[in-house]
Amino acid sequence: MAIDVIGLDADDTLWHSEDGFSTLTGRFAELVGPFAVPGEDGALPDLAESLDGVERRNLGLFGYGVKSFTLSMVEAAIEVSGGTVPAPVIQELLHEGRTLLARPVELLEGVDETLTELARDYRLLVITKGDLLNQQRKFHESGLDRHVTALEVVSEKDVETYRSILMRQRIEAAGFLMVGNSVRSDVLPVLEMGGRAVHIPYHVLWSHEAAEHNGEVPTLSSIRELPGWLAGVAGNGA
Amino acid sequence: MAIDVIGLDADDTLWHSEDGFSTLTGRFAELVGPFAVPGEDGALPDLAESLDGVERRNLGLFGYGVKSFTLSMVEAAIEVSGGTVPAPVIQELLHEGRTLLARPVELLEGVDETLTELARDYRLLVITKGDLLNQQRKFHESGLDRHVTALEVVSEKDVETYRSILMRQRIEAAGFLMVGNSVRSDVLPVLEMGGRAVHIPYHVLWSHEAAEHNGEVPTLSSIRELPGWLAGVAGNGA
Repeated sequence: MAIDVIGLDADDTLWHSEDGFSTLTGRFAELVGPFAVPGEDGALPDLAESLDGVERRNLGLFGYGVKSFTLSMVEAAIEVSGGTVPAPVIQELLHEGRTLLARPVELLEGVDETLTELARDYRLLVITKGDLLNQQRKFHESGLDRHVTALEVVSEKDVETYRSILMRQRIEAAGFLMVGNSVRSDVLPVLEMGGRAVHIPYHVLWSHEAAEHNGEVPTLSSIRELPGWLAGVAGNGA
Repeated sequence: MAIDVIGLDADDTLWHSEDGFSTLTGRFAELVGPFAVPGEDGALPDLAESLDGVERRNLGLFGYGVKSFTLSMVEAAIEVSGGTVPAPVIQELLHEGRTLLARPVELLEGVDETLTELARDYRLLVITKGDLLNQQRKFHESGLDRHVTALEVVSEKDVETYRSILMRQRIEAAGFLMVGNSVRSDVLPVLEMGGRAVHIPYHVLWSHEAAEHNGEVPTLSSIRELPGWLAGVAGNGA
């Protein structure tokens, strides 16, 4: 069956995102480092590692997104400082979180032209995790909404989530292609469901999203290569 | 046209919610009060008012929900204390926020029986603001998902939002009834769109949701009265 619907991941596939979390983690280490106290082993904690630990611990309850990350920064700052971090440092963490939340959308290179081209032949959906309000804002601000028929913000990208989106949107799995930077979220569950997937890595990957595949997943170095790849897929008439 | 689809608000219509924010505001005042510093007028701030101000200021960027509220509590604590609030107090605020986020769903009286009855004759949707992950968790935990065909978590309940839900779900406005505790979010935009609405007040209303209507909106004192009201609506065959 030919591909007729393309699902696009948003963060780090259409626009930059993880680089902001990465920069903010560095800022967290700078701000909180001076107040860190040695752990039980007598060694000073690795700040980035401590923050990542708190973030993962909170993921089930908080979910993805900048607000969750900001709450985890405050929690981690208090923890690694043994409760001694001063309020103005916490205020600065809140300020940095807010700045990331409000950051203007910056599209990845080639995205707008490629979506303009793909929208002529395919129905396009954006399927993304994260904070509902923030993803809606970025979607509309990006201007990509003119090419895309629906934005689906989900709390987790597993097989069940993809199945329910396809059912709601009346899409057959065999004609569905998912494109994204995360093997764990954008590739493996879609393949399991009977759809197809293309992996386009981003230069920063949150370790939580790391996953292996068997090497047979098509991997492109830029979204610009997607129309050419689609044209070359056997059985695809577009 | 007869009503065939019923949209149900969730927080404070199906399950308790605002009482938790209200209790937490009291706890905020208790915890932060001892560190409050006088404002420019020389008077100590009203803690609940200060928190409400920060919350409203953040609403456009943060949106609704417990995580947003928790971030605003931390921000307000630092502000009203002139940066002197100690980290362990902030840690306690985070802990209280987390407890509210994880609070087991407590259905309002009569909800389960009424939805069981309504589901026989009507298609039921739940339409709610707030945090995506948290609302999904509450929806599934409540067991109400067995009566309801879709959960729609939205970032704002305005006319455009309702229109897009009805379009996606292939529902005609004239056959749609919205039921909820907020005149601003559940009643006025639905009437403007050409649908019908029933108001069921909850005993606590966040001032942000306060709105007036012309007195002609049907108001029930409990969801238990809804089947009887529907049976009495002219033109409704159910």
